[in-house]
Amino acid sequence: MSQPAGNAVIAQSGGPTVVINSSLVGVVEAIQESGIAGSIYGARHAVKGMLDGDLCDLTDLSAEHLNLIAATPGATLGTSRDKPDEEYCQKIFQQLAEKDIRWFFYIGGNDSSDTCRIVSEVAARDGYDLKAFHVPKTIDNDLVLNDHTPGFGSAARFVACALMGDSLDNRALPGIKIDVIMGRHAGFLTAASALARVGHDTGPHLIYLPESVFDVDRFIADVDRVYGSHGRCMIAVSEGIHDAEGVPIAQMLAEHLSGEVERDAHGNVQLSGSGVLGDFLAKLIHERLGHQLRVRSDTFGYLQRSFAGCVSDVDAAEARASGRAAVQAAMDGVDGASITIRRTSDSPYTVDYVPVPLREVAGKTRTVPTSWIENGCDVTDEFIEYARPLVGPLPQIGSV
Amino acid sequence: MSQPAGNAVIAQSGGPTVVINSSLVGVVEAIQESGIAGSIYGARHAVKGMLDGDLCDLTDLSAEHLNLIAATPGATLGTSRDKPDEEYCQKIFQQLAEKDIRWFFYIGGNDSSDTCRIVSEVAARDGYDLKAFHVPKTIDNDLVLNDHTPGFGSAARFVACALMGDSLDNRALPGIKIDVIMGRHAGFLTAASALARVGHDTGPHLIYLPESVFDVDRFIADVDRVYGSHGRCMIAVSEGIHDAEGVPIAQMLAEHLSGEVERDAHGNVQLSGSGVLGDFLAKLIHERLGHQLRVRSDTFGYLQRSFAGCVSDVDAAEARASGRAAVQAAMDGVDGASITIRRTSDSPYTVDYVPVPLREVAGKTRTVPTSWIENGCDVTDEFIEYARPLVGPLPQIGSV
Repeated sequence: MSQPAGNAVIAQSGGPTVVINSSLVGVVEAIQESGIAGSIYGARHAVKGMLDGDLCDLTDLSAEHLNLIAATPGATLGTSRDKPDEEYCQKIFQQLAEKDIRWFFYIGGNDSSDTCRIVSEVAARDGYDLKAFHVPKTIDNDLVLNDHTPGFGSAARFVACALMGDSLDNRALPGIKIDVIMGRHAGFLTAASALARVGHDTGPHLIYLPESVFDVDRFIADVDRVYGSHGRCMIAVSEGIHDAEGVPIAQMLAEHLSGEVERDAHGNVQLSGSGVLGDFLAKLIHERLGHQLRVRSDTFGYLQRSFAGCVSDVDAAEARASGRAAVQAAMDGVDGASITIRRTSDSPYTVDYVPVPLREVAGKTRTVPTSWIENGCDVTDEFIEYARPLVGPLPQIGSV
Repeated sequence: MSQPAGNAVIAQSGGPTVVINSSLVGVVEAIQESGIAGSIYGARHAVKGMLDGDLCDLTDLSAEHLNLIAATPGATLGTSRDKPDEEYCQKIFQQLAEKDIRWFFYIGGNDSSDTCRIVSEVAARDGYDLKAFHVPKTIDNDLVLNDHTPGFGSAARFVACALMGDSLDNRALPGIKIDVIMGRHAGFLTAASALARVGHDTGPHLIYLPESVFDVDRFIADVDRVYGSHGRCMIAVSEGIHDAEGVPIAQMLAEHLSGEVERDAHGNVQLSGSGVLGDFLAKLIHERLGHQLRVRSDTFGYLQRSFAGCVSDVDAAEARASGRAAVQAAMDGVDGASITIRRTSDSPYTVDYVPVPLREVAGKTRTVPTSWIENGCDVTDEFIEYARPLVGPLPQIGSV
């Protein structure tokens, strides 16, 4: 072991996932093994805990305890969506200095990588010696320079299993079914619904991503066509679908219903945690195609990022390895970085973990490539081949 | 093998579950083994397929194929909610007579058991020799004379895993969270959310069943109290909650929004497949406790009865055994029956399958005993002990 150079703090940020605790454990165990830091602190509720000095000591957690935490959904340290400014950062450094914290590991998505960059840059300017590492996490799969991100595989698995079962339900009791899936700007998770197609006339038949403009007339024509030929229609739609001006349909409905919308500190409009988009689309179908139709909508909501017991093994392993890779970068003398996942081979599926400067990832959004979108209402086989190894083997289906 | 006395038809009815195909397979394999019938037909979409002669031949399905079907969510034969009258039944008998069908196995819930009784009684009156057996199925767990019903354990497992993960999510990013769970008159499934409590300050903190009157002021006071002491609040609420006059809140909202409600042939008002109840409760909390609160709602919808990969092993085994028990009753010379599940021991957990006359189960609804409901906003430990073996071992949770 090398001589410890100060202590370390780890925090989890943004929306929890079922594998974000695996990343936490990856960081903790790699520091324990390497001895790169003396004490290992966890900050409660992300930068908020660093601001308030609300820290817990993770230094001596046993391997058994760590394994249990790694297998637990949610973010055990707690998260927040706070976006620190200059003053916020300076208060943080006072707290960190008190504990001689010189390593900062921040697990989160693109807003969180930006927070990590801000803290890192203000520290450099203020002369506080802090090496900041961002460990990727987001079910949206929207971090640039990454082939994919920890959290996506398990959430995509949830979506695929949900659509598989729901489509078999809809085949048994036919009608038009709308499933609303998370994804503000990036449609990767909604696209993963295509993995549910396993023959046996399962769905989804139509898939709408936020990467395309959502046209109501086109949508109704699509549903009418599928229903006409199948006698039923399974639809996967992203919560982020928007009109030609880029205004999300869900946002318009929220404004229409309550006159206001909810935004977080990063300026993101609240889209999840409401069934309004699905209900609106169901009503639209009734009005345009007939009130006698059996139309139902479900909004998957927070289940897709938190459901206990639906985990992709590959995703859990990569989340943990991403945490370890951040500590490895620190040991290699990298002066702060965002860890990115690169696919090195499709068959067999292999990946590498590559540290890049924080500013190259921070606050940027990757979306589904246009070439993977088919006719504005489906995804290509290329996407399915891309996503399959991330989700893992799905249940087998039999029918008569 | 005994000499075959005519042929058999099997059908699946009502809402599909993840184990209703296990019951189908139980009936098929037991007839194959016993030789009680010559050919085994499956009716597509329940009584509808019997009316239209839309039958498929299941006689020679291999064990391998049957095992795959048993593990598949949804109802592979298709279901319907048709309620046959005298004329409908007579048309059915014409179809059955053509195929010399003398055994009728109907897998379904309480409306379906009533359909089975009607077909059986009209057959007896009309002198068509038909022995009718009802195999229990319902996620609502509301069949009388049963300790519990196939389909409930797996749906309850889904609800418990969902609440466990969602509560950990809510612990990480605190706020008020409402989860709306299926159950028109019986709150067993909503009550199963209590199984998600595994220490670590997980929820749900409040549970509302349709067995109690839902009082808005009382609800707001409960939420305010829990939020005040925990800084967050996880709420599980049945879609069937109703006012003092017995009118479901969801029905009032549907009438208010669209001026009409949807009913099936059995007179049931459509409550699922919409997020309106959750959204209403969220709005109510905002209005009464403050707009600055983070309030979200999710409606589990069709996922809880169809999700691929979330199955209770006990439930799957009992669903299959229920199908086999119906064939056993036929072999024992029972002249038509509904199979009921009785718990014979708590520790170790064991059950028996007891045939009872169809009219004793048909169309009746069992609800959660009052003694299992606590203060109108929780369930007792007695309920948790009752439900635990039906759901199976849940994921282990670790935290710091």
